[in-house]
Amino acid sequence: MKKPKWVVEKERDKRAAAAETIWLFGLHAVRDALLNPSREKLRLITTLNALGKLEDAVAASGMTPEMADPRKFTAPIDPQSVHQGAALEVKPLNWGSLEERCVGGPDGVPPRVVLLDRVTDPHNVGAILRSAEVFGARAVISMQRHAAPETGALAKTASGALERQPYLRVRNLAEAMETLKSMGYLVLGLDGEGDQDINTALAGKHDRAVALVLGAEGPGLRDKTKETCDALVRIDAVGGFGSLNVSNAAAVALYASRGA
Amino acid sequence: MKKPKWVVEKERDKRAAAAETIWLFGLHAVRDALLNPSREKLRLITTLNALGKLEDAVAASGMTPEMADPRKFTAPIDPQSVHQGAALEVKPLNWGSLEERCVGGPDGVPPRVVLLDRVTDPHNVGAILRSAEVFGARAVISMQRHAAPETGALAKTASGALERQPYLRVRNLAEAMETLKSMGYLVLGLDGEGDQDINTALAGKHDRAVALVLGAEGPGLRDKTKETCDALVRIDAVGGFGSLNVSNAAAVALYASRGA
Repeated sequence: MKKPKWVVEKERDKRAAAAETIWLFGLHAVRDALLNPSREKLRLITTLNALGKLEDAVAASGMTPEMADPRKFTAPIDPQSVHQGAALEVKPLNWGSLEERCVGGPDGVPPRVVLLDRVTDPHNVGAILRSAEVFGARAVISMQRHAAPETGALAKTASGALERQPYLRVRNLAEAMETLKSMGYLVLGLDGEGDQDINTALAGKHDRAVALVLGAEGPGLRDKTKETCDALVRIDAVGGFGSLNVSNAAAVALYASRGA
Repeated sequence: MKKPKWVVEKERDKRAAAAETIWLFGLHAVRDALLNPSREKLRLITTLNALGKLEDAVAASGMTPEMADPRKFTAPIDPQSVHQGAALEVKPLNWGSLEERCVGGPDGVPPRVVLLDRVTDPHNVGAILRSAEVFGARAVISMQRHAAPETGALAKTASGALERQPYLRVRNLAEAMETLKSMGYLVLGLDGEGDQDINTALAGKHDRAVALVLGAEGPGLRDKTKETCDALVRIDAVGGFGSLNVSNAAAVALYASRGA
């Protein structure tokens, strides 16, 4: 007898959760993870040279590094990775629920959230985490499937932001958008064909909670995602050609929507 | 007898100019180059599948493709490249002089220019070319050395913008900045430690010609570059940590400085 689809999916998710550890690499990513008390750290592999540069962070973490020869670096990472002699095995961070993370804070700054609809490139998602941190977004929200998982490559591009910027994965993006709406968020989908430019759409509304939804390059937002947005907005271009890279579009949208 | 340095440099530049051809790859980059009448095209290698997708562009270009087996793609490109079955050997584009490119146009839109101080990552420069095109910048100006050369990887990230967005290489960045100043440009250096935020610096000046100077991540702008700027400006962050990826900073700065 064939197992029902939900049983298969549940089993797969359980296996993934059990197995899931990540190898972070590169001095910046490893240092920031070592210094993050919320990060569950399993194994640290470094060269002598890298250890010299990470000494304070290694001491603070209380970890005992396994020493590696720079000529045959033994950590199980992609051989093309620019590891700079440091690799750290960790568990993914647990950022809690969407509701907890996206609630307005006591600082009175109107919250911002970024949602990603099938953006799978780790370099783009890493850059988006950096921008989200710089512009103080509460969270970056992605799907559990068809998304960029927390990986070493993502962490390296995020340049430390992965340790500090909440990155939540949800099963259903439209449901997450509805939850945000019920919490008072204005949900804006970025779309080249949007009826209004983002500035016009936000005029007089900079004190509202705002969620920005971005799609993958090429396909853009899925129909269901578009329908669930309060409005579709574009970033006004001067040139007649071309389009922004998705992380560049996210940075501009966060900047354009910054709170009053 | 040892040759003087300027002779060695001149010879090297001459050799480079003579040898310099680029292999573009990927459907988007190859298509846009095929359709660009200003692009000098040398050899086209495609799989049957890719040719089907590029048929119109190949016909328009008048080129005869060399057919390749998808299992052993013969173009001399990095084996890791996502070539999608298409590679095109071309000469770099000649964008003419800085003065020609950066003069104000008859459309009356105040011109924008981006200068890059030792930004060497092709993915960042490719994304900056895309943003420059979208926001109508006259040119992206980089150094001849310590810069990202026109390569297939850059062209692929630029997603067609390399064919349309002027990308100039200058020997001396400070001299180029002085030339722009003498043409009436306000030259702003992006710097996390800048005294003013970019909005304040541009208040009432959106009708001026503006040049934005960005440095590599980590080192930032060199001292000489900083000294040559009219002002150093920052992008105001909300969070206390982190910094924008350089292409994200360029996109935000172009957006913030868009003409009146």
